[in-house]
Amino acid sequence: MTTPDSQNFVRADGRAVDQLRPVRITRGFTSNPAGSVLVEFGNTRVMCTASVEEGVPRFKRDSGEGWLTAEYSMLPAATHERMPRESFKGKVKGRTHEISRLIGRSLRAAVDLSQLGENTINLDCDVLQADGGTRTAAITGAYVALADAIAVLQDRGVVPGAPLKAPVAAVSVGLIDGRVLLDLPYEEDSRAEVDLNVVMTAHGKFVEVQGTGEHGDFGREELNAMLDSAERGIAQLHAAQREALAR
Amino acid sequence: MTTPDSQNFVRADGRAVDQLRPVRITRGFTSNPAGSVLVEFGNTRVMCTASVEEGVPRFKRDSGEGWLTAEYSMLPAATHERMPRESFKGKVKGRTHEISRLIGRSLRAAVDLSQLGENTINLDCDVLQADGGTRTAAITGAYVALADAIAVLQDRGVVPGAPLKAPVAAVSVGLIDGRVLLDLPYEEDSRAEVDLNVVMTAHGKFVEVQGTGEHGDFGREELNAMLDSAERGIAQLHAAQREALAR
Amino acid sequence: MTTPDSQNFVRADGRAVDQLRPVRITRGFTSNPAGSVLVEFGNTRVMCTASVEEGVPRFKRDSGEGWLTAEYSMLPAATHERMPRESFKGKVKGRTHEISRLIGRSLRAAVDLSQLGENTINLDCDVLQADGGTRTAAITGAYVALADAIAVLQDRGVVPGAPLKAPVAAVSVGLIDGRVLLDLPYEEDSRAEVDLNVVMTAHGKFVEVQGTGEHGDFGREELNAMLDSAERGIAQLHAAQREALAR
Amino acid sequence: MTTPDSQNFVRADGRAVDQLRPVRITRGFTSNPAGSVLVEFGNTRVMCTASVEEGVPRFKRDSGEGWLTAEYSMLPAATHERMPRESFKGKVKGRTHEISRLIGRSLRAAVDLSQLGENTINLDCDVLQADGGTRTAAITGAYVALADAIAVLQDRGVVPGAPLKAPVAAVSVGLIDGRVLLDLPYEEDSRAEVDLNVVMTAHGKFVEVQGTGEHGDFGREELNAMLDSAERGIAQLHAAQREALAR
Amino acid sequence: MTTPDSQNFVRADGRAVDQLRPVRITRGFTSNPAGSVLVEFGNTRVMCTASVEEGVPRFKRDSGEGWLTAEYSMLPAATHERMPRESFKGKVKGRTHEISRLIGRSLRAAVDLSQLGENTINLDCDVLQADGGTRTAAITGAYVALADAIAVLQDRGVVPGAPLKAPVAAVSVGLIDGRVLLDLPYEEDSRAEVDLNVVMTAHGKFVEVQGTGEHGDFGREELNAMLDSAERGIAQLHAAQREALAR
Amino acid sequence: MTTPDSQNFVRADGRAVDQLRPVRITRGFTSNPAGSVLVEFGNTRVMCTASVEEGVPRFKRDSGEGWLTAEYSMLPAATHERMPRESFKGKVKGRTHEISRLIGRSLRAAVDLSQLGENTINLDCDVLQADGGTRTAAITGAYVALADAIAVLQDRGVVPGAPLKAPVAAVSVGLIDGRVLLDLPYEEDSRAEVDLNVVMTAHGKFVEVQGTGEHGDFGREELNAMLDSAERGIAQLHAAQREALAR
Repeated sequence: MTTPDSQNFVRADGRAVDQLRPVRITRGFTSNPAGSVLVEFGNTRVMCTASVEEGVPRFKRDSGEGWLTAEYSMLPAATHERMPRESFKGKVKGRTHEISRLIGRSLRAAVDLSQLGENTINLDCDVLQADGGTRTAAITGAYVALADAIAVLQDRGVVPGAPLKAPVAAVSVGLIDGRVLLDLPYEEDSRAEVDLNVVMTAHGKFVEVQGTGEHGDFGREELNAMLDSAERGIAQLHAAQREALAR
Repeated sequence: MTTPDSQNFVRADGRAVDQLRPVRITRGFTSNPAGSVLVEFGNTRVMCTASVEEGVPRFKRDSGEGWLTAEYSMLPAATHERMPRESFKGKVKGRTHEISRLIGRSLRAAVDLSQLGENTINLDCDVLQADGGTRTAAITGAYVALADAIAVLQDRGVVPGAPLKAPVAAVSVGLIDGRVLLDLPYEEDSRAEVDLNVVMTAHGKFVEVQGTGEHGDFGREELNAMLDSAERGIAQLHAAQREALAR
Repeated sequence: MTTPDSQNFVRADGRAVDQLRPVRITRGFTSNPAGSVLVEFGNTRVMCTASVEEGVPRFKRDSGEGWLTAEYSMLPAATHERMPRESFKGKVKGRTHEISRLIGRSLRAAVDLSQLGENTINLDCDVLQADGGTRTAAITGAYVALADAIAVLQDRGVVPGAPLKAPVAAVSVGLIDGRVLLDLPYEEDSRAEVDLNVVMTAHGKFVEVQGTGEHGDFGREELNAMLDSAERGIAQLHAAQREALAR
Repeated sequence: MTTPDSQNFVRADGRAVDQLRPVRITRGFTSNPAGSVLVEFGNTRVMCTASVEEGVPRFKRDSGEGWLTAEYSMLPAATHERMPRESFKGKVKGRTHEISRLIGRSLRAAVDLSQLGENTINLDCDVLQADGGTRTAAITGAYVALADAIAVLQDRGVVPGAPLKAPVAAVSVGLIDGRVLLDLPYEEDSRAEVDLNVVMTAHGKFVEVQGTGEHGDFGREELNAMLDSAERGIAQLHAAQREALAR
Repeated sequence: MTTPDSQNFVRADGRAVDQLRPVRITRGFTSNPAGSVLVEFGNTRVMCTASVEEGVPRFKRDSGEGWLTAEYSMLPAATHERMPRESFKGKVKGRTHEISRLIGRSLRAAVDLSQLGENTINLDCDVLQADGGTRTAAITGAYVALADAIAVLQDRGVVPGAPLKAPVAAVSVGLIDGRVLLDLPYEEDSRAEVDLNVVMTAHGKFVEVQGTGEHGDFGREELNAMLDSAERGIAQLHAAQREALAR
Repeated sequence: MTTPDSQNFVRADGRAVDQLRPVRITRGFTSNPAGSVLVEFGNTRVMCTASVEEGVPRFKRDSGEGWLTAEYSMLPAATHERMPRESFKGKVKGRTHEISRLIGRSLRAAVDLSQLGENTINLDCDVLQADGGTRTAAITGAYVALADAIAVLQDRGVVPGAPLKAPVAAVSVGLIDGRVLLDLPYEEDSRAEVDLNVVMTAHGKFVEVQGTGEHGDFGREELNAMLDSAERGIAQLHAAQREALAR
C-alpha cells in the first residue's frame, strides 16, 4: 500500500512515482519485415518486427485459422555485463522462453486468428539495450509492428477480413520500500520487493497480470494500488501507440 | 464477474464452483531424497522431492547464503496423448521452463536463504498423471517436501538457524462462461476464457499472481472475484499441508 | 561356481542366495496410457506405461507391420545422491540409451509385429526409486503394461489379430565373493565381480543374456550356475505376472 | 578483367562500378558496452559492440597476453525472408561460424595482444538489416568499437600500453558479367560470378583476402583488377573510420 | 542347436560354419597416438587408437588410480548406404553409446587401473568400412593399440608398474536357420535369429557375453553351442594378437 | 616478398621452398561409397569419399538440378594431442564448419549441377592423420573420389550428361621469416606469418583464394609471390590426379 508521502517522492531519475519514462515508438525502423518498430522506454530499446509466413504450425493445420508466435532475445551486449550469446552456448535460458511465451500470449489477444487465413505472424523482439521493463516495452512495440504487418497483409489482399482487435500495451509496476513505482528501470527493478507486469487492452481489460514477490509477499491492497498505477500508465502507452500509428 | 446463479451451478465432476478437488498429500513417498511427497489434486498426481546438496551456484558463492531451485517435468505418458520425452528430443519446452521458474520463485518465498548455510535445495516436481493444475499441485506438494528436507538438515545439524518461513500453497481459478470456477481439471482448463494461478502464504499474502486471458480479456471485478475464490481455496490447501505435516 | 556353503549364506537383507526380493505388480497405476503398471522389486520402483500411437517410424512405413520402442529414465531423485536431469543437461547418458535399447529389444520378443497393424507401442519405464535391478524390473513390469495395452487395442478393434506372444520377464544375478546371488540390490550390485542380466520367455527360452565382468572375469561353470539361478528366479516372476494379469 | 566500357556502366542503384554505397558510422549507439557502433553500408546495418572481460580463455592463461574474439549473428528479420533464430533452433549455421571467425582474425590484426594484459575483448556484430556486405561492414564498424573500448581501458588504467595497431577495414568486390563492381548489395551479390572480400590495414597491407568463384572461376588479371578496386574502396572506408573517431 | 549337416555347410563367402574371416592387424597405422592399429575382419576395417592423457575424470580424482574409456564411431560412408554424421546431426545414436560402453568395459578388464597412475587412456575405434562384427573387431584391435600405448608409457617412465593384464579379444556368433555360424558378415548378421557377442581373455575366461534374440529366442543348448564356437574363434584371435605384437 | 637466398634455403624436412611433400592418391580405398580415395600429402592423410543419394535439399527441389555438399572432420587421434570428438561433445567447431564449406564450394566448381539430375553428392573428408594442409589435401583427394562417383553414376545410367568439369586441386603456401614456402606441414603452419590456401582448376583458373595474415599482414608483392608458388604446386597436384585416374 502506498505510503501517504508517495506523491512527493522523487525517484533517482527525477520521475514521480506514477510517471512513465519517455516513450518513443519509431515505425519502419528496418525495411525487410512487414512491420518493424524501435520502441524505447527510457534507456530500454527493443527492436520489434512482425514477419508474415504462409502456412501454420502442425497443430493449426486445416483449421482455417492463422497463428501468431513471438521470440524474445537479448543481444549479448544489451546488459551492463555482457551475457553469453544463447545460440553459441547452445542453450536458451528459461527466462528467454518465459518472456517469449508472455509476448506471444499477449499479442494473440490483439488478433482474431480466424480472420488471418492460414498465415503465421512471427514477432521478434530483440533487446538492443536493457534498462528494465524489456518485456513490457516489447509488448507495447510489438503491437505497433503487428498493426503495420496486418495493414500490409490487407493491402496485398492476403487477409480479406479484419484480424486486428483492440490495441494491447504493457507496463511494469513495483513495490519499493512500500511505495508503488511505475515503469521500473533496472536499478529499481533489481531491488523491488514486488514486481508486477500488466498487459491491458485499450478497452481497459486485462490480458495478463503477473505479480511476483520474490523479495517479499504482498497483500490485496498493495495489489490494487499497483493495478491502479499500471492502468493509468498503460492508458498513456495506448496514446503513444495511437500517435505512432497516426503518423 | 460471477453470474447470480453460480452458487447452484454443478460442474461436470459434481463439484460446486468454489470447491477443490479431493486433496491428498502423502509424505515419505520415496525414501532417497530428504523430502518426498506425492500430492494429488483429484486425478492430478505430482511427485515432489527436495534434495539437499552442499555448495551453491556460482552467483551465490561466498555469500554465506543458500539457494533453492526447482525443476518441473511431465512424464511422457502423464497426459491423455503421450508427449515426446524432452531428454530424448534434446529440447526442453518453454512451458517446462516457465513452470520450473514459477515453482522456484514460489518456494524461495518460503525459505530464508540466509539461514540455510551455503547449501542448495533442489526441488523436483515430476507429474505422474496430469489433469489440470499440475503447477499449483506441484507448489503445494513441494512445500511439504521442503519442510521435511529442512527438518532433516536441522536434525543433522547442517542448518543451525530456522530457514523455514510461512507455508506456501497454490491454486488455479478460471472463468468459464462468465463463472468463476476453482481448481480447474483439464477439461475446464482447456476451455477457460481466463486462467489465474495464485500462490499465497499461510499469512494470507500473495507470492505470485498470474492471470492469463488468452481466450478473452477480463476486468477488475472479475479479477477480484477470482482472487476471492483462490484465497478461500488456498486456505483449505494450507490446512491440508498442516494436517500432512502433523501426521 | 557357487561355493558349498552358499545354501546357508544369509544376505544383508536376510534373503537366501537364490531368493527374489518381494515383487509387487500394480496394474492401472495411472489412467491415461493404455497400460500403466507400477512394478516393485524390493525398494526398486519403476512406473511402466504402454501408449499406442497410430503410424510407424519411417523404416517400417508401408510394411503392414507395427513397431514397439522403449524409453528408460531415472527421475533425478530416484538415487541416493540426486543426479542431474538429462533433459535440462541437454545430454542423455550412454547408460540410459543402453538400457532403453535393451528394454525395446526384450519386449519386441513378446509381440508379433505383423499382427499389430501400422501402430507403434511406446513403452516408458521411469524409475521412481532405484535400488538395483531397475532394468530387469522395468522389463518385467513393461510386459504387463504391454499386455494391458494390447487388450485395449483388441477391444477397440484396432488390432484384429493376436499380437501378444509368450510373456517376457527379467532378473539380475551376480557373483560376489564367489557366490551366485539372485536379484541384486544396489549395495550388492556395486561390488559384484560379475553382473548378469537375463531376459526369458515363459517358455523357458532366452531373449537376452548380458553378462559383464568388469570387476573380474568368469568361467563357463560360473556362467552356468548364474543362468540356473536366473532361470529359477524368472519362473517366479512369470508367476507374478500371471497373477497380476488374472486380477 | 574489367571490360573497356565499365567506367560508364551505371548500376541498378545508380552507382559507378567503383563507388561505395553511402557509409555511416555512428559511435555510442548503445551505452552499456565499452564500444558500441552502428555501421551502415547503404541498407546494410550492423550493430558492432566491443565488451571487455577480465581473464582470458584457457589456451591463453598465464601467457601475460590478452585475447580478442568475435561473434556475428543475423537478427531473424534482417533478411528479406525471415530466417529461423539460431538459438531457438539449437544450431548455429556454418556460415555464422565462418564469418565470426573471419571477423575475429581480422580484428586481432588490429590489436597487440601483448599490450592488453590478461583481458578479453568480445566483439559482437549483430546484423539489424542485411543487404549484402554484412561481414565487411561488420569488420569496418568493429574496428571503431574496438578503438573506443581500448580508449576506455586506457582511461581506466587497465591497459598501461598501447594495444591498438593500424586501423582495419574491409570491402567486397564482385565480378558480374565480366565487370568488377565494388561493395555489392544483395541483388548483385547473389548473381556475382566471383565474390572477393578484402580486409586491409590503413598502411595498405592485406589482413585477409577471400575470393570465391562459386558461379565461375577467375584468372590472375581479374583477381588483380578486383584487388585494385578493393584497395581504393578500403582507403575511403579508412577515411570514414578516421572521421568517425575524430568526432 | 546346430543341425547334423552343419559341418559340411558352405557359407555365401565360402567359409565353413566355424571359420573366421581373414584377420589382419596392422600396428603403427598412424603415428600421433601412442597406439594405433588397423584391424580387419574380412571387409570390416576399424582404426583403433589409444591416446594417453594426464589426469582422470572427476569420479576417479585422488584415487591414485587411472581410467580407461572408449569411443566408437562409424564414418558416414562406412556402410553400404551413407549414414548422417552424428556430429553434424547433433545427436549420438543409442547404438553408438551402447557399443562405446561395451568396448570400454571390455578393455578395462585388460588393464590394472591401480598400476596406471592418475592417467586416462582414451580408446577411439573408428569404423572405416563396415561389414558386420565392427564391435568385436574394435575390441580385438583396441587391445593391441592399448598394449602399444602402455609400452610407450612404460618407456617414458610414466607408469612404474605393469598395468597390462591378460589379452582380450571378441567375436560374434549367430544362429541362422538353426545353424551356429561364427564371425557374421553384414549379410548374415541382418538375418540371424540370434546374435551373440563374446569377449574373452586369453586365459579362457569371459569378460562380456551379450546374446540377443530379436528374431527368435534361444535355448540353453543353443547358447552352449554358440559359446563353444565363440571360444574356438577367440583363441585364434588371441593368436593373431600375439603374432601382431611379436612383429 | 621472397628473399634472394630462398632458392638455396633447405626446410626442416629437407625440401626446397617450392617443393611439395610426397603426394599419394589411392583410389578404391574403401568399397561401399561410389568413390573412395586416400590422399596423402606427406604425413597428412585424409580419407575422401563421394556418396550419391537420390533427391536434393529443399532449396533445390524441382529445379531439375543436383547438389553437392561436403563434410570435413578430424578423427580425435589425428592430431598430436588427442582432441575431443565433436559428436560426443555435442558441438561442431567453427573451424570444422569453415573447412566443410570451403570443400563444398571448391568441388561444386568441378561439377555441372544441371547435368546431375536431382541427385546429391555427399563428400566426406575424414582426416586420419594431420600434419598441416588437411583442407588442401581433402580438396585434391575429393576431386578424384568425385570423378569416380560420377563415372559410377554414368555407368548406371543415372546421369545422362557429363557433369564433370575441369579438375580442381588445392595447396597451401605460407610466408615464414619473409620466405614463401609451399605446402606447409604443421610445424611450419603454426608459425607462418601469412597462410594462403589456393584452389585452382586444371585450366589455371582460381576457384578460391584465402589468405590470412594473423601473425602479420602482407603486401601485394608477397601475395603475388605466394600465388606464383601455389600455381606451380597445383599444376603438380593436377598431374598426380590425372595419373591416379589413369591407373
